[in-house]
Amino acid sequence: MLLVQKFGGSSVATPSHIAEVAKKIQQVLSRGHQVVVVVSAMGDSTDHLVDLAEALVAIPSGREMDALLCTGELVTTALLAMKLEQLGIPARSFSGSQAGIHTSYDFGRARIESIDPALLRKALAAGITPVVAGFQGVTATGDVATLGRGGSDLTAIALAGALNADRCEIYSDVAGVYTADPRIVPDAVPLSCLSYDEMLELASQGAQVLQTQAVAYAKGNQVVIHARSTFHDEPGTQIEAEPVIPVKPAVTAVAINRHVAKVGLLGVPDSPGVAALLFSVLAEHGINIELVIQSVSHDNLNDIAFTIDEQDVPRARSLVEQCLVTLHGKAVVIDDKVAKISAIGSGMLGQPGVAARVFKALADSDINIQMIGTSEIKISCIVARQDAEKGLAEIHNAFGLNGLVDVIEDPQ
Amino acid sequence: MLLVQKFGGSSVATPSHIAEVAKKIQQVLSRGHQVVVVVSAMGDSTDHLVDLAEALVAIPSGREMDALLCTGELVTTALLAMKLEQLGIPARSFSGSQAGIHTSYDFGRARIESIDPALLRKALAAGITPVVAGFQGVTATGDVATLGRGGSDLTAIALAGALNADRCEIYSDVAGVYTADPRIVPDAVPLSCLSYDEMLELASQGAQVLQTQAVAYAKGNQVVIHARSTFHDEPGTQIEAEPVIPVKPAVTAVAINRHVAKVGLLGVPDSPGVAALLFSVLAEHGINIELVIQSVSHDNLNDIAFTIDEQDVPRARSLVEQCLVTLHGKAVVIDDKVAKISAIGSGMLGQPGVAARVFKALADSDINIQMIGTSEIKISCIVARQDAEKGLAEIHNAFGLNGLVDVIEDPQ
Repeated sequence: MLLVQKFGGSSVATPSHIAEVAKKIQQVLSRGHQVVVVVSAMGDSTDHLVDLAEALVAIPSGREMDALLCTGELVTTALLAMKLEQLGIPARSFSGSQAGIHTSYDFGRARIESIDPALLRKALAAGITPVVAGFQGVTATGDVATLGRGGSDLTAIALAGALNADRCEIYSDVAGVYTADPRIVPDAVPLSCLSYDEMLELASQGAQVLQTQAVAYAKGNQVVIHARSTFHDEPGTQIEAEPVIPVKPAVTAVAINRHVAKVGLLGVPDSPGVAALLFSVLAEHGINIELVIQSVSHDNLNDIAFTIDEQDVPRARSLVEQCLVTLHGKAVVIDDKVAKISAIGSGMLGQPGVAARVFKALADSDINIQMIGTSEIKISCIVARQDAEKGLAEIHNAFGLNGLVDVIEDPQ
Repeated sequence: MLLVQKFGGSSVATPSHIAEVAKKIQQVLSRGHQVVVVVSAMGDSTDHLVDLAEALVAIPSGREMDALLCTGELVTTALLAMKLEQLGIPARSFSGSQAGIHTSYDFGRARIESIDPALLRKALAAGITPVVAGFQGVTATGDVATLGRGGSDLTAIALAGALNADRCEIYSDVAGVYTADPRIVPDAVPLSCLSYDEMLELASQGAQVLQTQAVAYAKGNQVVIHARSTFHDEPGTQIEAEPVIPVKPAVTAVAINRHVAKVGLLGVPDSPGVAALLFSVLAEHGINIELVIQSVSHDNLNDIAFTIDEQDVPRARSLVEQCLVTLHGKAVVIDDKVAKISAIGSGMLGQPGVAARVFKALADSDINIQMIGTSEIKISCIVARQDAEKGLAEIHNAFGLNGLVDVIEDPQ
């Protein structure tokens, strides 16, 4: 079996962590498997590099910031490769460039455009275990470009796709994907399996186990992901296309995103093109909008509300206020003290009444729902930030996730 | 004018040092010159990387050690390039590989085999100041290889040669080359100019201003070197082919190497091939020998003595003891408490009596000379280590180096 194994920053934080990881890889190899290893930078070493840059320059150029940050992962690859060799395992470190990962020129958030894994294949054929630097690739003109936060997940999954690996194992300091964040919902339990779509919704709704782009890549290339703990032997979570459980529960997991703000434009004309103007201005400035509500028109005037990432508030405020002037609207209202809680499950496909049960769980706890957004397998509610954790626990409980009981089949 | 400017580790030790260096480069550019910058790793950051490796592995593989160590210089290039850009100077960082520095596979002490400076030329033509990582290059198969201690000097001088630069400026925390190490001989004075041959002898006799291989490369490619202080405006030392002073003093500078050991083989047969056997065994194990004395034979038996680097003593001892058995010799004697002091000057070419004056200076101070070695422009003596610093000062004094007076012309 060919496995790609990715070890995150906390798994390689110190030389002794790296030695542990090397032993783990040795065990897998001794069972006759082939492994391609992908590593992140050691612990907080990336933060240290960012500090150096910030001590010099307020806004560093993207190219140079990437040239700086890529070194963190390079250090880990060399150290892990030399440790493997000391254990008698032929191994070799690869930078993103050496591993054939070709990216766009979007420094700091580059896209993988293609992968040429010829050197990795050659190493594997020669019995050498490649140790690849995550988070980075190379542009057509040889510049190093990084893939953005969590980019090592994407490196691992993309390599697994390019190499037709049997599985991509993502090791971190958590034991897989839980029904909710265990720091918020103490009786959350780990999930043994998830579909790509569920994981995508979870990742984009604030669960930080896997990078969204990485999961999307896995879905597009049918890469089976196994998320698990580096230093504990729990089973972890498998993420793949096919639902493994015959009858799935309506809700698989719940997620929370506390970094949300709500923007309202009050009293804008109810005429075609208003929403298009507003949202195209925001898109041009790279601000993502999520849930949108347009109120029922009265006196030919409308209210429009939408949610954005908290950190975009300062830029969004000035852009929206300019739109207000253009549109002769009445007021801009921004509430940056809201949060989004979501219930996710591919089991809700074709099951009526799931949304109603989410809303009832919140109503029973006197939590007011400010906005609602849904997809085929997700129900999201914007609530006051102070109510969000309680609301999350209520939904988790209402769907019996602590025991993973399908409450449609077995209502409490 | 096209200048290559190299800044050593102490010149880029902190972000504020890097900011100073950026301003220095800005001044040179503002005078209409073009600059290619070469940098070392920040301060003791290379030692930190070595510590990480040593915490994991006793003897790391050369390839992985180089993959690890190269990151130190990469960090400096990115930081300096982003600082230059902030000052409004178009700049770009280059790894050794990006700069087109192609090396042999001798990891840890690779030779530069060729330089393809096309990307550097392109950057210069576009008005961009390249900032190149010293100490490293890339093998034919894309592995990073480092050039050994002091290798950034070699990077700078080789690039100056490949780019036909007008001059290669080597900046460090010392104000150029002195007549002797000022920490040992307080009245040592800086030299304004030196020939390549003098600098080569000085560098290989223990003066640590410039790497020997770098000076040899400069000589071979007629690169003018200017060694000077980063943060002080002293004139520094120019190193080039032509003697600039019409009548040169007999001795230009003196040097000391305290890391020498003397090895003696007593009572080996006086027959052909004995020395060849001994020295080929040592060469096979990478041990350099320097001065050699063979005593006058008596009873068909000989004594052979030679000097080696102190750190090679443990390995040399066992090899020489094996040879002793093969040769049926009588004893091996090793003295690791000696030092080598040297007087160097291209002015001694064709001047008789210089060696005699060196020996007399030592004899007048009751310093016993154990071994003697000479080249056309150098006289070296092995003395007891405890006498070495005093001997160095005596020679420095005997040739009037404190005032740079040519004592042949004007004897004291």
